[in-house]
Amino acid sequence: MISKNKIKLIRSLEQKKYRKESQLFVAEGHKLVEELLPAFECMYIAARREWLERRYQHVTGNLCENAEIQEVSAEELQKASLQRNPQDVLALFRQRTDRPVSGSILQNQLSLGLDGVQDPGNLGTIIRLADWFGIEHLFCSPDTADLYNPKTVQATMGAMARVKVHYLDLKAWLQTVDPQTPIYGTLLDGENIYDRPLTPHGLVLMGNEGNGIRPDTAAFINRRLLIPNYPSGRATSESLNVAIATAIVCAEFRRQASMF
Amino acid sequence: MISKNKIKLIRSLEQKKYRKESQLFVAEGHKLVEELLPAFECMYIAARREWLERRYQHVTGNLCENAEIQEVSAEELQKASLQRNPQDVLALFRQRTDRPVSGSILQNQLSLGLDGVQDPGNLGTIIRLADWFGIEHLFCSPDTADLYNPKTVQATMGAMARVKVHYLDLKAWLQTVDPQTPIYGTLLDGENIYDRPLTPHGLVLMGNEGNGIRPDTAAFINRRLLIPNYPSGRATSESLNVAIATAIVCAEFRRQASMF
Repeated sequence: MISKNKIKLIRSLEQKKYRKESQLFVAEGHKLVEELLPAFECMYIAARREWLERRYQHVTGNLCENAEIQEVSAEELQKASLQRNPQDVLALFRQRTDRPVSGSILQNQLSLGLDGVQDPGNLGTIIRLADWFGIEHLFCSPDTADLYNPKTVQATMGAMARVKVHYLDLKAWLQTVDPQTPIYGTLLDGENIYDRPLTPHGLVLMGNEGNGIRPDTAAFINRRLLIPNYPSGRATSESLNVAIATAIVCAEFRRQASMF
Repeated sequence: MISKNKIKLIRSLEQKKYRKESQLFVAEGHKLVEELLPAFECMYIAARREWLERRYQHVTGNLCENAEIQEVSAEELQKASLQRNPQDVLALFRQRTDRPVSGSILQNQLSLGLDGVQDPGNLGTIIRLADWFGIEHLFCSPDTADLYNPKTVQATMGAMARVKVHYLDLKAWLQTVDPQTPIYGTLLDGENIYDRPLTPHGLVLMGNEGNGIRPDTAAFINRRLLIPNYPSGRATSESLNVAIATAIVCAEFRRQASMF
């Protein structure tokens, strides 16, 4: 049986306030939980017998030293779960302490900057694709969706074990970056992304779903990009979803880096 | 006042069963509603005074001949809305009757095939990006998410006014397609998408979020593609979200079509 207090705790973690207080977050499903175990301290696992028997020893080793482990029925898992279709395992992990990263890192690798991306699903999807494209760091304005929101966590599909997400005052941080560093952004008046060489390092800034990149942040962009629609200039949807645009931009950076 | 019956009707349209019975669907927000007005028959509009005064005459012309129009308060809109943050206008539209499209269309233009994409948000996002990339037709297996699910509708951001979505037996339909037609699919053992020329016509097949393309459907693929991760072959997330993968593939098709 999962205690009433535990269920209350798990459900409270849908809200940022309680995540902040407890420094915990929820992850559900064996793929996700197994990917997070080596990267985050696990405090609690509620799982069906099948997962405990088949996977627990295999995947956890001594990764769960401090964790309370409970075998539960499907019905009990349903009561605690934040998902519409609860899976075989639910875990509580401790949030990681963010370590500040100097802006000089942009001289050696490509990173992403998110200026007010609101939707937790979009953030999670961006973390997943960043992992695919070997992008290690995401620099986010404080009003960007929370990494530990259950919707973000689930959408990362485990990529948050590898990609580091930093919340900071983007403007103040960008002021510390060497002005020679390429800072890219997609803007309506940008230059066709396929028309100029892209560097294997620097920062790609992406903005809020409705309002794009704030003027204060956009001022740091020194390479303005545009994803052309097709046929070019045709009247279409006004814009692409922010995760979709991020994917197209990252794919093109990596295509060029692999070719030259 | 929105009548109790109307509220009940609107809320019932979250379920496919009632959408099928009534042949109606809900759209919310001025951008979306205004994009759909020229493309779908509007049956009902509930809007704040601001929208009615500023936009109604301007955008609707005689597009709403058969529609019942109601001015409502924010509180009333909240009661009827399926969104967490209701906007200024909610409308009911009639679903379009699907007209069969011959497989020979693939000899003239690039289309998308979706084999069991489950998530309505993913479907809506794919429709939005198809519009961006000038893709007019989406061919979907019957178990693909419903175009008229409110989550799909909202995620299209209006692109469903232009992109046509057909539900059909994909396998039977593909059997009618000339075997010379390029049928692309992303598969784990595919060839690097950047290593071979892509045609400006044909079909790109995308599969279910968890299980990919069904073997029955995959058998029709004659050009197997792979989106390379970076650095190539590095251990990363196992896969990309289906909408993200579709975007990267479509962007590359259109990049090549614009260059050569």
